[in-house]
Parts: sequence; structure tokens; C-alpha cells
Amino acid sequence: MPSTSIAEELAKKQREISVSEFFERNKQILGYDSPTKALLTVVKEGVDNSLDAAADADTLPDIFVEVRKVDKDEFLVIVEDNGPGIVRKEVPNVFGRLLYGSRFHSRRQSRGQQGLGISGAVMYGQVTTGKATKITSKVEEEDVAYQVELIVDTKKNMPSKVREDRVVYERTHGTRIEIPLRGRYVGGKQSIPEYLKATAIVNPHARITYRSPEGESTVFERATEDLPPKTKEIPPHPHGIELGTLMQMMKETKSYKLGAFLEEEFVRVSSRVAKEICEAAALDPEVKPKSLGLEQANALHEAMQSVKLMAPPTDCLSPIGERLIKKGLKNVLGSLRPEFYAPPLTRDPAVYAGNPFQVEVGIVYGGDLPPDQPVEALRFANRVPLIYQAGGCALTQAVANVDWRRYGLEQRGGQGLPFGPAIVLVHICSTKIPYTSEAKEAVATVDEIMTELDLALKECGRRLKTHLTKKAHRAKTREKFDIVQLILPRIAEKSAKIVNKKVPTLDATITKIMGVVWIDEAIAYDKKQKRHTVTINVHNFTSAGKKLNLHLLLPRGMEAKSFDPKPAEVRDDGKITWELKRVDSVAKSSITFVLDGLDEAEYDESDVYVSGINPGLVIGAEPLPGDWELNYADFEAEEAPTPEAEEEGEIDYDEAEEALEDD
Amino acid sequence: MPSTSIAEELAKKQREISVSEFFERNKQILGYDSPTKALLTVVKEGVDNSLDAAADADTLPDIFVEVRKVDKDEFLVIVEDNGPGIVRKEVPNVFGRLLYGSRFHSRRQSRGQQGLGISGAVMYGQVTTGKATKITSKVEEEDVAYQVELIVDTKKNMPSKVREDRVVYERTHGTRIEIPLRGRYVGGKQSIPEYLKATAIVNPHARITYRSPEGESTVFERATEDLPPKTKEIPPHPHGIELGTLMQMMKETKSYKLGAFLEEEFVRVSSRVAKEICEAAALDPEVKPKSLGLEQANALHEAMQSVKLMAPPTDCLSPIGERLIKKGLKNVLGSLRPEFYAPPLTRDPAVYAGNPFQVEVGIVYGGDLPPDQPVEALRFANRVPLIYQAGGCALTQAVANVDWRRYGLEQRGGQGLPFGPAIVLVHICSTKIPYTSEAKEAVATVDEIMTELDLALKECGRRLKTHLTKKAHRAKTREKFDIVQLILPRIAEKSAKIVNKKVPTLDATITKIMGVVWIDEAIAYDKKQKRHTVTINVHNFTSAGKKLNLHLLLPRGMEAKSFDPKPAEVRDDGKITWELKRVDSVAKSSITFVLDGLDEAEYDESDVYVSGINPGLVIGAEPLPGDWELNYADFEAEEAPTPEAEEEGEIDYDEAEEALEDD
Repeated sequence: MPSTSIAEELAKKQREISVSEFFERNKQILGYDSPTKALLTVVKEGVDNSLDAAADADTLPDIFVEVRKVDKDEFLVIVEDNGPGIVRKEVPNVFGRLLYGSRFHSRRQSRGQQGLGISGAVMYGQVTTGKATKITSKVEEEDVAYQVELIVDTKKNMPSKVREDRVVYERTHGTRIEIPLRGRYVGGKQSIPEYLKATAIVNPHARITYRSPEGESTVFERATEDLPPKTKEIPPHPHGIELGTLMQMMKETKSYKLGAFLEEEFVRVSSRVAKEICEAAALDPEVKPKSLGLEQANALHEAMQSVKLMAPPTDCLSPIGERLIKKGLKNVLGSLRPEFYAPPLTRDPAVYAGNPFQVEVGIVYGGDLPPDQPVEALRFANRVPLIYQAGGCALTQAVANVDWRRYGLEQRGGQGLPFGPAIVLVHICSTKIPYTSEAKEAVATVDEIMTELDLALKECGRRLKTHLTKKAHRAKTREKFDIVQLILPRIAEKSAKIVNKKVPTLDATITKIMGVVWIDEAIAYDKKQKRHTVTINVHNFTSAGKKLNLHLLLPRGMEAKSFDPKPAEVRDDGKITWELKRVDSVAKSSITFVLDGLDEAEYDESDVYVSGINPGLVIGAEPLPGDWELNYADFEAEEAPTPEAEEEGEIDYDEAEEALEDD
Repeated sequence: MPSTSIAEELAKKQREISVSEFFERNKQILGYDSPTKALLTVVKEGVDNSLDAAADADTLPDIFVEVRKVDKDEFLVIVEDNGPGIVRKEVPNVFGRLLYGSRFHSRRQSRGQQGLGISGAVMYGQVTTGKATKITSKVEEEDVAYQVELIVDTKKNMPSKVREDRVVYERTHGTRIEIPLRGRYVGGKQSIPEYLKATAIVNPHARITYRSPEGESTVFERATEDLPPKTKEIPPHPHGIELGTLMQMMKETKSYKLGAFLEEEFVRVSSRVAKEICEAAALDPEVKPKSLGLEQANALHEAMQSVKLMAPPTDCLSPIGERLIKKGLKNVLGSLRPEFYAPPLTRDPAVYAGNPFQVEVGIVYGGDLPPDQPVEALRFANRVPLIYQAGGCALTQAVANVDWRRYGLEQRGGQGLPFGPAIVLVHICSTKIPYTSEAKEAVATVDEIMTELDLALKECGRRLKTHLTKKAHRAKTREKFDIVQLILPRIAEKSAKIVNKKVPTLDATITKIMGVVWIDEAIAYDKKQKRHTVTINVHNFTSAGKKLNLHLLLPRGMEAKSFDPKPAEVRDDGKITWELKRVDSVAKSSITFVLDGLDEAEYDESDVYVSGINPGLVIGAEPLPGDWELNYADFEAEEAPTPEAEEEGEIDYDEAEEALEDD
């Protein structure tokens, strides 16, 4: 009976695999595929930890990073922070055990989530050099720091201390790690300084000092002294929670009643909502959660998905914000001068599998960006730059899925990364980022996330397109103006001579021929006051009076004031609406407002829309998008376009002559 | 002292994370990002396990797969195999514990390696449906099967049995799993039938029966009754082994002497090589491995890397093979008729981090393949089709890194997936595939692997280019022939008339004008005998006698025979060389051989090269590539090209007339 012995034989080989052994043999999963990547990964894990530590302590991060060359391919990575420090008895566990940490069970935005990163780095170090990692940590109430050299005992997944000590430490509190490893130091986009620069951009409150293997120091100075709002822990949101997770929660809850369980253990569930859920599931709110069977749990689960709920609160998340995205992009670009920054977009929070998340997108276009290469996608997750695995990342894929040809970029077949002089910044923040692997290099293509990314990218694409169309229209109309102003006076002069009359005034005639409402703006900046004064002019170059509504989209976080005239509506999301008084033919109407406290480069073009007028008449603003809900009262119905208003682009010389004869 | 309390506060939150909890919260890492992907992943894990089980038992796999619709988004996935079965006491562990298995510690090619796949599927099922997985397994020596319903207790990472029983089972041995899960069933390239088809193609010895949710059955019948050679377990190869791993091995070894340790615990280390290593490291071979310190270990490690070693043995690997790759590609294409199959390439095994691996590449081109879309890359790892994460996979990236413009494909900027009517198949097999994550969807970009892939792809690209050049040359020369044969006779006729002479014979003249050596082939197929008779003709259309060597590259695994004339060399790797006798001007020389046992479509074009002649003269064969080492004796030196031989492409009418006058 040969099969028997095979099954028996196999049974003998079956055994448990320690998690450290697993990752020791699958280092690439933790980001250690190659010596080059390994060096960056160790730095990244150290910096992630340090930024999280500072956030825990509500401190402005002050982080020191050094990469020291030990031998031809051996390096020592040093990362030191001003966090709260780690109490002595936890140091070995935090650095010497995989799957050990404080953030795994909390629903709050943080960089580390897995309890794998820094201990994985220690393990990689010991496997490639045979040497231990040295950790020095000081908490404020102790006089000296605790120092330990340790490795991970991979068979047991437990720390193995080589040496420990008490040492004097200059900072009042903080942690310093020194990890030896084999690696390779490279320059370019995936280099350590580039990674640190990108980190500084999306963490403008952090100061990062870097010393390279050549001994050169670079300081990425903090751009703001304001801490990002501290994120709060929240319970799961009912939407997308999995049945199994729900059943587990019901098994473990301390609540005796289903209603209370729902209200207490989920966010956005009031007692009214809890009742509604129970009703929809045909369950008694007084029933004991533990007592529910599979079928009842199923009904409850379904009811939780179908009930209408508020989006999760935003205070568990820490988006970069529309203002800082633009600032960040400017920083990335350095000396490059793009033509246009599409107003960045921070979407409202959404939920996947009970986890709140938020996406943000910014686009830069034109100027001296390289025109003939694929658009660069800058990816960030929870304020951490993603460097590797671009092709396998939801953020890149979302960019590739958009048909950018509709927004003025070149893209073969309408998919894949578009070509052109543009950079797209994409950030996702969440209480739990669904990374494709423990290396945290790429985000998985979760349906809900893909949807939000798509919406954000398309909206930003539309803003880009608005700019490009406006530019093209302006250029075309300007050309028309030039021609009309060149030719008409000549015709007039000649005609006047023939009929022996005075040369007529041509303003009204030109106006009638142009048949456009021309919108332009002037932005003045007062350096001393840090004040932008924005003036938007509406010139009516048509033959009739025109009434229209003007809409402006400000990046979130910017507050306009000193409006003249007063807008009909000013919304929190930066949308402002004016109902303009009728502008007579050949007359001009203006609105002004000021923005305080911004750097000059932070505001260089307004995003202007119009409604209540035939948009074909308007040069310099786009029609109000359909998804821009108007909340204020009674818009004037659109005027029926006059015949001449329908024309655009070509000059009608017959009409010009007719107009002259009328005079 | 606020920081103190923070550190203390944090310390309280620190805790161990169970591996099941980790993956329960990070399901996407196991391939469960979306309902669509989840369904495929569960099927994939089941089929992987079944194929491995059959391989363990040395049985031709006979696998049944069913996807049954239970509810609107709930499915039951059933996978049943004829493997050896699993002994009762191991069933709960194998299916109810993560990181538990038999293959993790063995250096041998298999699909499963991690002990995560199938238990991950069980966990995903329970989390999304609240239901247990049912396993039925029978080993040959027992009369009845063991049946158990279980879930994973994620807090403890241990199986939790819901019910167990003994049941009657029709097969003598085998395993059947029934996993309930929430999912979504879709068609298209990433569908379950497509996945099974791809699996069948690279596992031609397997029969796979599939029943869809609609109740339709499809059988992917086995294409061969031959089992792939059984793979053997081997110890690590010294090249690329990590210092830490080496130190661990020395700590654990039972050898008392360093020499013996090296010889016994590494492959390709003979006692001579062991001595050489010890010498290079300045270590005594008699020293106890356990006694070595870090510095000595370092020296030993360095010596191991620098010593010259044989590549690892191939019997631990199971490549698809050049013959089956072509067959597989034909299968994938179905009714599509491409113009050309570049001869597939199986590289010799190489090593990364002590793990042997081997890459294989095949390219199909032209015909009715869609011309205007990115080239499709079919990816396989250890005979498993890779469906998702194409962008994040070394196999795709290697394709994108090649400058395909050099090989006749369109590619913007010389990088990224090229465009054109082509499909590239890439397979990597290894005792340990370095997947980017536990979902085993993509291969990490390990340097050594990237190098091998690059070499293989470029070689295949060259073969494609050879074909395209040959085609273009042939067309151009054919055109010239046509023109010459049309015009010369007219000139001759006219001239003859004028000078009142007989119209001359033009063969020699035409020859002189053409100045080429024309190589073509005829392949006859005898269906009954399954025999290809290949004839390669060498026409000398130059004015002098020519001597040349003809080289043929046969796909590995094909054996030619009945050669006429006898080749100078026939090599194992399919390279055959003939030294042709001098072919007189206007004469022809031929070689023939037969191939037995192939299907007609398996051989339709020979890959022919020439040497010992100015390759500019030759139409229908490419110059012998420089990397094709010639092992046989004394090639004739290349003849100095005659002046007329230098010309190509344009017809020289002066010379034609001169030639006529000579007559």
C-alpha cells in the first residue's frame, strides 16, 4: 500500500512555522528583495517608527537619520527621535519580536500598524551581517537611558539579548536605533535623500536631519510649527464590516442587549439607528448578542449594510489638506516652473470593510515639466511616500484607469499611464491602509478605494481640462479681438472717406461682433501683509445686458474675506457663489476679495465657473459642473441666447459692414 | 511628567499579534482584496494544493473543481483530488492553522511553500459567511474517509472543529474540500475557467474537470500521460547564502568538522571544493563549525561566494520545457493564427540566495494577434499561472525593461510594455519563488532573477528579430528577383534584335546581378507516422563558388535524426552544425533531417544561422550569434567578399547591360 506510506510520510513533515522563520525565508515580503531596497527599507521603518512616536507624544518630530558605511557592502543605519521613549521591559519585545506592537488593534491613522516593520529590520540586519541591533531609549522620568543589543531568535520569535546597559543620554526622552546590514547605496528617485525629502513634504511639521555615508548633512527644516490635528481612535463603521467579524464581536461583547451593542461598538450608530437596524433585521433590540445564531447574524449584517448612515467622522484621519498638497508639489518640483497647479482635492471620508479612509489628489501641468514621458505619479499612504511597487499599487492603477484623453493628456488607447508634462500626487489615509504586503509598498485594489480614487482623479482631471480649455478659448478670442481691432478701424476709415462722413466710434460695433462675455482676473500680492488681493472682471462684449452667476472654488483651508460685492453663498468646502447684477453691453463688473497669510506662490489662479448664462458666450470661465449642488435661492433662468451670441470664433465681415452702415 | 505617562500608556497597549489575527485584518495580503479576486484565490489555493498532493503521490492528477452559487453573493467552492489523502490527525492542522505545513522547510519545487494558502481560504470563508469549511480525506489503507467541519480560531491560530465523522468515499484515496465564501463570479481573462485553462496548459499531465455555477461542465483533458520528472530535495547552494543563515547552520549542524559541514550541508561542494573554500578563508577544515566567531564566519562566507562552483543540479526543478511552452502557447491562442513562434528558451538553472531557479521564455508574433495593444505577458511561477498584480511582478517588469525596439516591436521611449501583435510567456521555477506577498500573485525583483529574465527575453527577442529580418530581406530580394526576371529578358530580347543575335541564356547573368545566397526550407508532414521531414536548401546566386556552415537551433526536447548530410556537431541543447561542401555558382545544396512524434503544428519553421560566409550575402538565415560557442573543429575562414557581393537591394542596370554585352 504505497499511498499509505506517502500520507504517513507527509504527516511526519507537517509542522508549525514560526512567524520569524517565515519572514526570514521570505525577506522580500518585508521589502528586502535586493541590497539597494533593503537599505531604504531599514531607513523607512526607522523613520516611520520615529514619526509615530512623536505623534504619540504630541511633539513636533525632530528626527536624525544617518547611513554610515562600515565595509564595502555593510552599512549602519542610525535613526534617532524625540518621541516619548519606550519603557525598559518593552524594548526587547518591540524590536526583537515579529507581530508585536501597540497599533495593530487600534482604529486610528498611524504609519506602523503591523508590529512587523522594525523587528523585521533587526532580523534582516542580523541575517546579513551576523550582528545585533543596538537600541537606546530614554523615558522622561528616568535619569539614564536603557541600552540593549539584541537579535531576533527566529525559531522562537523572541528577542535574544546580547548585552544590556544603562547609559547617559543627552535628550530628555527619545529612542535611538543602530541597525547593521548589508546593502547598496544608490542615488536617484529611489534614494534615501529623495525618500526623506518626500517624507518632509507630507509631514511639514517634522524636522529631519540626514547624514549621508559621505558625511554630508542635510536638514529638511519644518515648514510649519502646527502639529496636524491628533487623530482619534474610533470603533468600526457598520458599512462593509464582515459577517465573521460581526459574529466575533457579538461573541466577545460585554453588552447584554443587541441595541446597546450596536450603539456602543460602532461609530455613527445612535440609539435611533440601532433600533432601525434591529427592525430591518426583524430582531429584538433587547436580545442578547451572544445568543444570535448564524441566520440572525446574517439578517443583522444585511440590515447594517442597507441602513443609511453618516460617513465616519474625520477626526480619526489626518489628510495632508489641499493647501499643503499644493505647497508639497511646489517643493517636489524645486526649480521646475509648471504652467498650472490644478486645485488639489481632498475627498470626504468613505469606508471600506468598516475602516474610514480619505483620498487626496493634486495635479501639476505644463511649464518646463518634461513633455514626452509618462506622467509621474507620486504616491503617499498615511503621509508615508511609497517608493517601490508602483505598478502593483492601487494608486497607480487608478491613475492608469482614467481616460486622460478627455482631460487633455495623451494616452494610447485611453488607458495606462498617460504621457505629458504632468505630475499627479495621490494620497490615501486610513485607520488601516490595505497594503498588498507587509513591506507596505503598495495599496491593494479594494473596490471602495478604487471608486474614491477614480472620482478624485477625474475631478482633478476636469479642473486641468478647465484650465486647458480656458487657455485655448482665451487665445482664440484674443486673436479675434486683435483682428477685429485691426480691420474694423480701416474699414470704417475707408467707408467714412467714401461717403464723406466722420469716422464713427467703433466700441459698440466691436462689441457686437465679438459677442462674448470676457472674464479675467488680476491677483496682487502684498509681501509684508502676506495678502493676496484678487479681482475678477466680467466684461460684457455682447450687444445686450447680461446677468450671470459667478462661482469660485477655493482650495480647502483657504479663507477668503473682504468680499466686494457680498457673495450669495460661502461654503465650508471652498465653494463661493456670487449673483452678479446685470452688466450692460460694453460695460464691466468686478468682484474682489482678499486671502491672508499665504505665500505668494500659493495662490496664482482662480478656479472660476459661471451659471445662469449661455456658457458658449463666456470666455475665461467654465460652465458650473452638474455635481456642484447649488444650495442658495432662486437662480435667474438662463437668458435665451441672442442670435449673434451663438456665433463664435469667426469674424462676420458682412455684419461688420452692416454695423458700420447703421451708424 | 507627561512623557512618562505616554511611554507607560503605550507600554500597556503593546501586545503580541496572533498570525491569524494579522491575516484576518490583512486579508488582501492573502489575495482577498475584493469579492471577485477572493473567489479566484480560493479556487487557486485548492487547485495548488491538489496538484502538489498528486505530485507527492507520483500520480497523474485528476482534479475536480466546482463553484456552486448558494446565495446572491455566497458561493461554495469544492476542490477534490486523487492525491494520497491526509492522515486524520493532521487534517485539522493543515486546514485550520496558518503557517503550518510540510513544504516550508524543503528545498524542492512545489506550488505551496508557506503553509498559509488553504488555511487562509478557510479563514476568509468563515469571516465572510460565518460558516465552517468541510474537509473529507481518505488515505488508502483505511476503509472510510475522515470528514471534519472546522474554522480557524484566530485568537489562538488553532483549528476549532465544529463536527467530525467517518464517511464512505468513492475514491481509494484523495481529499475533498468545500469552502463557503462571499464572492463575485466574473468572466474574462481573470475568470476561473481561464485560470484553470492556463493551469492545464503548464501542467499537461493533469486532468481538470470544472463545473460552473450554471452547472456546465468543462474537462481540460491531459495532453500527456507522462509525469514531469519528480523533483528532488537539495541542500542550499553556497552562492548567495546569507551570512546569518550560514551562522545559524553552523550553530545547528551535527558535523564536527568545517570541511564535512560544507560538503554535507551544501550542494555542489565536493571535498576538494570544501578544502578550497577553507583555504580561501584561511580556516582549518578540521575546526568545529560551532566554534567560529563572527569574523571567521565572515571570511568563510566570502570564500563561499568567490569560489567557482557548478550551477545547482536541475533535478530539484521542473521547468515546462521548450516543446511544451510552444504547445502551451498554441493552446492559449485557440483559434488565433500567429505568423511566428519564436523558438522558446529554457535557461540553465541559476542561484539566488542559495536557491536554484530557472527561467523560460516564449514569444508568439504576428498573424491575427491584435496589432495595436500592449504586448500580453503570460506569467507562470512553478507551473502556476499568475493572474493578478501584473504591474508589481518581476516577470512583467523584466519584459518592460527590455528595449524591444531593437527586436522589431514598437515601444515608446524604449521601456514599458511594448505595443504590437505579440504574446510573451514567462515562467520561473525555483525551490523557493520569492513572491512579493503571501498571495503569491507576483514575483519580487531579486537581482539574480532579473538578470536571468533579461538574458532570456533578449535572446527570445533576438530570435524574433531574426525572423522579422529574414522576412524583410526575403521580401526585398524576392522583389529584386521579380524585377530582374521581368526586365532582363526584355533587355536581352531587344539587344539581340538590334545586334541580330540569338537571345542569350540569362541564368548566369541573373545570378551575378542578384549576388545572394538564398536559403529556404520545405517541411513535409506525414500524419500517420507523425513525422516531419525538413529540407533546407542553399541556392548560390552569386558568381563564385561559396563555402559556408549552416547552424540550426532546435527547441530542447526535440530530437532530429536521419540527417543528410551528417552534421559536424549535434549538441544536447538543440544546436546542430553542418559544414557544407562548396556550392558552385548557380548551384544548390540541400540538407534534410526528420523529426518524429510531434504534432504537425509543433514544428513549422527552422531557426537557421550561418557562419564562414559574409552574412550580408545570405538571405533566409542570420549570422551565427556571438554567444553561440562553437565546439567543433576548425571553421573555414570567412572568404573575402567579392565586390559584387557587397551590393544589396538595388539593381545595377549598368552591370546588367555589361553582363549582356559580355555574352
